[in-house]
Amino acid sequence: MRLETLGEFQFIDFIRQQAPTDDHVCRGIGDDAAVLALPQGHQLVTSTDMLVESVHFQHDWISKEDLGHKAVAVNLSDLAAMGGQPRFLYLGLALPVSTEVAEIKAFLKGCIDEASKYHVNLVGGDTCKSPGPWFISVTLEGTVPKDQDIGRNGARPGDLIMVSGTLGDSALALNLLTQDRAPGQELLAKHNRPTPRIELGRRLGAKRLVSAMIDISDGLAGDLDHILQASGVDGIIQEAQLPLSKTFKAHVKKNPAIKEMALSGGEDYELLFTTAPSNEASVMALAKDLGLQVTTIGSVKKGNGVLEVQDRKGSSRPVAIKSYDHFCRS
Amino acid sequence: MRLETLGEFQFIDFIRQQAPTDDHVCRGIGDDAAVLALPQGHQLVTSTDMLVESVHFQHDWISKEDLGHKAVAVNLSDLAAMGGQPRFLYLGLALPVSTEVAEIKAFLKGCIDEASKYHVNLVGGDTCKSPGPWFISVTLEGTVPKDQDIGRNGARPGDLIMVSGTLGDSALALNLLTQDRAPGQELLAKHNRPTPRIELGRRLGAKRLVSAMIDISDGLAGDLDHILQASGVDGIIQEAQLPLSKTFKAHVKKNPAIKEMALSGGEDYELLFTTAPSNEASVMALAKDLGLQVTTIGSVKKGNGVLEVQDRKGSSRPVAIKSYDHFCRS
Repeated sequence: MRLETLGEFQFIDFIRQQAPTDDHVCRGIGDDAAVLALPQGHQLVTSTDMLVESVHFQHDWISKEDLGHKAVAVNLSDLAAMGGQPRFLYLGLALPVSTEVAEIKAFLKGCIDEASKYHVNLVGGDTCKSPGPWFISVTLEGTVPKDQDIGRNGARPGDLIMVSGTLGDSALALNLLTQDRAPGQELLAKHNRPTPRIELGRRLGAKRLVSAMIDISDGLAGDLDHILQASGVDGIIQEAQLPLSKTFKAHVKKNPAIKEMALSGGEDYELLFTTAPSNEASVMALAKDLGLQVTTIGSVKKGNGVLEVQDRKGSSRPVAIKSYDHFCRS
Repeated sequence: MRLETLGEFQFIDFIRQQAPTDDHVCRGIGDDAAVLALPQGHQLVTSTDMLVESVHFQHDWISKEDLGHKAVAVNLSDLAAMGGQPRFLYLGLALPVSTEVAEIKAFLKGCIDEASKYHVNLVGGDTCKSPGPWFISVTLEGTVPKDQDIGRNGARPGDLIMVSGTLGDSALALNLLTQDRAPGQELLAKHNRPTPRIELGRRLGAKRLVSAMIDISDGLAGDLDHILQASGVDGIIQEAQLPLSKTFKAHVKKNPAIKEMALSGGEDYELLFTTAPSNEASVMALAKDLGLQVTTIGSVKKGNGVLEVQDRKGSSRPVAIKSYDHFCRS
């Protein structure tokens, strides 16, 4: 069945049936706006993202269920980077009327499964037809106790630079896909089903263990640059310390140029943060407790936003920031 | 200059410069998510909408500044219908890279001017390129004191049905535009620059003067149907009571078929609500105080969601609900 047969209102009813809600949802799907209760003493933290077909994704490269998962996960990752507890989800879907309902059901399953994993309720959104591509708009609201939110602007000279997980796997997967080569399950999962580091972010904020934090969507160098610019400091990264997966290393052996992807590839959705050296052991212990890898990859210096990378031999080079600019590359 | 020359990050910087913020904004544009303070004892109320070129608007029919105004106004109208106080705005913009920066500046001016009128701060969003049409996603957050929010499900038998402003002007303007006829300033303004009834909605909620409320986006009949269905009651409308503008009446004189647009035309963005007869005088006084027209157009009866219209001679007919279905009309 196609969307044009199902109709908008039956479609919305279907979404409502799939979306469980809890006590914080006073009014969910089906009114002019959602009404939500926030715990006392908490701030509201909100992130919004768009995913556009042929810009952010190709249907050939990702299943509808994975696409739903990813649409939600990238917003969860933004909230993780603020130390936030995600709570309420809104989905905007502009889809061609010829879209198969089965495809949308798979997409919604991906969205709702991923949201439910973090006790996030789907409480609203909008649906309409698209004259062409799939347009997906995701808004995520969460809460963070007062004074436990973490911005990009708190890095101080002397701080360490730390990162969760491994780097470059997602960019490598995309690179292989664009060459019509199969990336293999592990890399593909990193690209299509990223894991937002919600609990790590929340605990780092609650224990005030970090001075600045961001999630890596533009690539390590680009996102570290955002922290350095916002904080008004320089940063230096030890290339040898960059955490790389075994699979990534195997690809680097065959093609050393790939290594660059750990620095400037995007969509890792790992947390990148700065902290005083006295906090390093506590951060490591916290990560271990969560079964996560966290690696110290560099340090913050007095300065005005310059990022350097030091290679194994100790020689430094400034890094050309290659954050993805949506309007400047066609 | 085109977007591809300006670049995404300069574009975001430009937006940030245009967007004033107040004390409730702890972190605004430029972090992974916005962090906001809500007043104690208030609930969060959130609405999200999409506007897609060639589906919701044609560039030929609306200036960029009016488009910005309208994108914000339709979300403000949703919050008005909940009795909410709008506070924080998020803009998602997917635009072709060839878009002239001057056009986007005009669009943003429309957005921010309209938001500022209601002390709403632009605090976040997302920007990316579109492979074709303009795709606009708007999210609006507000607050409503506990127990002052108004849903669609509270209409009770015996209640009156009331509506603000006049009906059908916006649909008539669109109808004329599709025929390449100029609607004239007054009708065009109703279509392109609707006025959200924020203060009316907020005061009706604060004084608990209404049992159910909705804003008219789908047309009077379609939106009243939403109230009747959600409340499990029937409704009867007196056709002779429908509030019509002088301009609309003049068009009806020339073409009586146009009258139907007051019932089933969309995008009025007026408030439609139900209230006990004992509240009617208070509602009228409140509206007068705001300089707004409010009209009693019918009443609620026991039933299960049927809407009837009674003509001047007293004969009733059931109304075919013709809510706009985005997926069923091409």
